[in-house]
Amino acid sequence: MQRQLRQASFWFDRGGFTAKVKSMTKVGHVHFVYYGDYDKLWGWFQTVKDRFFRDTEDITKNMRARGGGIEDIVLINKNYEEPNYYQLKATFNTVDSMGANFINTCLEQFAQTLQNEMMESDVFSPKEADIQIIMSILSNYTPECLVRAEVECPVEFMAVDGMEAGEFVQKFERAVHVARIEPYRATTHNKGIMNGIDAVVIATGNDFRAIEAAAHTYAARTGQYRSLTDCEIKNGTFRFWIEIPLALGTVGGLTTLHPMVKFAHKLLGNPNAEELMKIIAVSGLAQNFGALRALTTTGIQQGHMKMHLLNVLNKLGATEDEKEYFKNFFRDKVPHYSTIVSEFERLRSPKGK
Amino acid sequence: MQRQLRQASFWFDRGGFTAKVKSMTKVGHVHFVYYGDYDKLWGWFQTVKDRFFRDTEDITKNMRARGGGIEDIVLINKNYEEPNYYQLKATFNTVDSMGANFINTCLEQFAQTLQNEMMESDVFSPKEADIQIIMSILSNYTPECLVRAEVECPVEFMAVDGMEAGEFVQKFERAVHVARIEPYRATTHNKGIMNGIDAVVIATGNDFRAIEAAAHTYAARTGQYRSLTDCEIKNGTFRFWIEIPLALGTVGGLTTLHPMVKFAHKLLGNPNAEELMKIIAVSGLAQNFGALRALTTTGIQQGHMKMHLLNVLNKLGATEDEKEYFKNFFRDKVPHYSTIVSEFERLRSPKGK
Repeated sequence: MQRQLRQASFWFDRGGFTAKVKSMTKVGHVHFVYYGDYDKLWGWFQTVKDRFFRDTEDITKNMRARGGGIEDIVLINKNYEEPNYYQLKATFNTVDSMGANFINTCLEQFAQTLQNEMMESDVFSPKEADIQIIMSILSNYTPECLVRAEVECPVEFMAVDGMEAGEFVQKFERAVHVARIEPYRATTHNKGIMNGIDAVVIATGNDFRAIEAAAHTYAARTGQYRSLTDCEIKNGTFRFWIEIPLALGTVGGLTTLHPMVKFAHKLLGNPNAEELMKIIAVSGLAQNFGALRALTTTGIQQGHMKMHLLNVLNKLGATEDEKEYFKNFFRDKVPHYSTIVSEFERLRSPKGK
Repeated sequence: MQRQLRQASFWFDRGGFTAKVKSMTKVGHVHFVYYGDYDKLWGWFQTVKDRFFRDTEDITKNMRARGGGIEDIVLINKNYEEPNYYQLKATFNTVDSMGANFINTCLEQFAQTLQNEMMESDVFSPKEADIQIIMSILSNYTPECLVRAEVECPVEFMAVDGMEAGEFVQKFERAVHVARIEPYRATTHNKGIMNGIDAVVIATGNDFRAIEAAAHTYAARTGQYRSLTDCEIKNGTFRFWIEIPLALGTVGGLTTLHPMVKFAHKLLGNPNAEELMKIIAVSGLAQNFGALRALTTTGIQQGHMKMHLLNVLNKLGATEDEKEYFKNFFRDKVPHYSTIVSEFERLRSPKGK
């Protein structure tokens, strides 16, 4: 978190972070096989669509009371990719809960309703009505549960770490651009963003594998894996932003059960899901700014190895005094493993003392 | 982990899991800008390539003693994507360490060597020699640090959960196929795999964001985000496999520092990096088999909600006796949140008692 805090203070003096939730829609599917005519299925589905809402009224009652529920259910033809493969695709608003259990329970009911209604309808022959439900499951890919966070300030205020403002923003823009066009770099670029994001996701009791999967699939949506952040220098203004899908919950799940998770929510001012999306997107953007700032100025190893120095010293069994000595020793240089070990040995040898 | 253990026992009776490490190469880049002729740069680079190995001899000494080091350094022309953009791409063997610090330290030295050597060479004009190092950094995308895990057995032994073997394998194959062709499903499919993988990655002190990023970028390598597992039914045999990049360490980093991490390594029989790659790939494959097995038979909610039942009961402040009652109550049905609450209220009301 140290890196984010440092960047938060940098941007605090330059207008701060802004964030905006673009939409909060979640998605789930009933995947099924149907041996019949698509137009017939489509026509029939429009006439019975209400039934899917009615059959889930008990399940959705509490969610509707909180302002959420099922947004829509559509039939999707996937025949062109796989013969006889179709989907019911449902969209949901789960308000402040992540909603996985809610969505899956609705979907399993949709599958039941689909089978029952087709069996009872006289539109289909017995063979046509005998559909196969492959599975009913939410999707962790949530491109419509999307948040944007941003920073901007005049280029002239962007001098950092002894580098002139114009040179820094130009190098920074190049580093972002490399992550747009080169998947080898984009992976590490986004991995760093997730360092910042997962820390808050885990602290708030959310599912980091779900957040990771959505973020990376989103990064690959154009057909090439690309950076989740982007930047622009225009009319003397530097702008840097992230757009990322974040399906989060601030109620349900572990949020009120785990004492440390409860504490984390309190520490953040008990945000609702929309506010937490903004907080976490900002955390990712701050991390990325910090990483690119280090990479394009001093290099990443100076900071990395300073963090790692303490690990190595602990392993060597260094005393508190020795740790202080090494902090000073490496004040102006990058600590390499071999240098730490040899200096430690020198220090402990009779001659060193 | 419960899901993996159940599948481990299922496959133990059917020939078990096999796994094979395909390669263990890691990658890093010096990204730089050069305003000159590519052929000139390329020709010159071949003549000074040795220098990059020599300048890093001190850094690579220990790694070479363990059988690793720098495998190769190549010059890559990225001009067609971004004017004047080039890379030094280096490949590394870091043996049993994850190697991030080692790789980054080498790369920062390469950048230094590149600048020095170009400046000192009379091949380049002063303007040409004045390259800009954008950044020097390892890549978390490691498609050549790849492991494959597999199960196979005669279809006739694949009857599960009351479903006939032929029907099960056919539904299972369809479910995998859906995750090959539909990114919405592939994301959740792979997310589940990572549930299994991250558990062991974290327990063994490895960096789960690095593992996540590599896995998902690899899943998107064809230009569409797809499943990391695949399956085949051929000549009466069911085969199911995963191929996944896993850049792991069993020495260095946290591996010997954190007491629980140390214990996890001991529990696994102190594997080397290659063995740990196999263990973790198997863990992901076992998870995916379990998830697809549940999804294509009973549905996912029966298992999910049974796990969640205890969370809800804890939140309601249920006693141990009440928890026992509820375990029995939901033995044959899916526990929904509203059913749990209403039954709990009934139980606690004077009439219920």
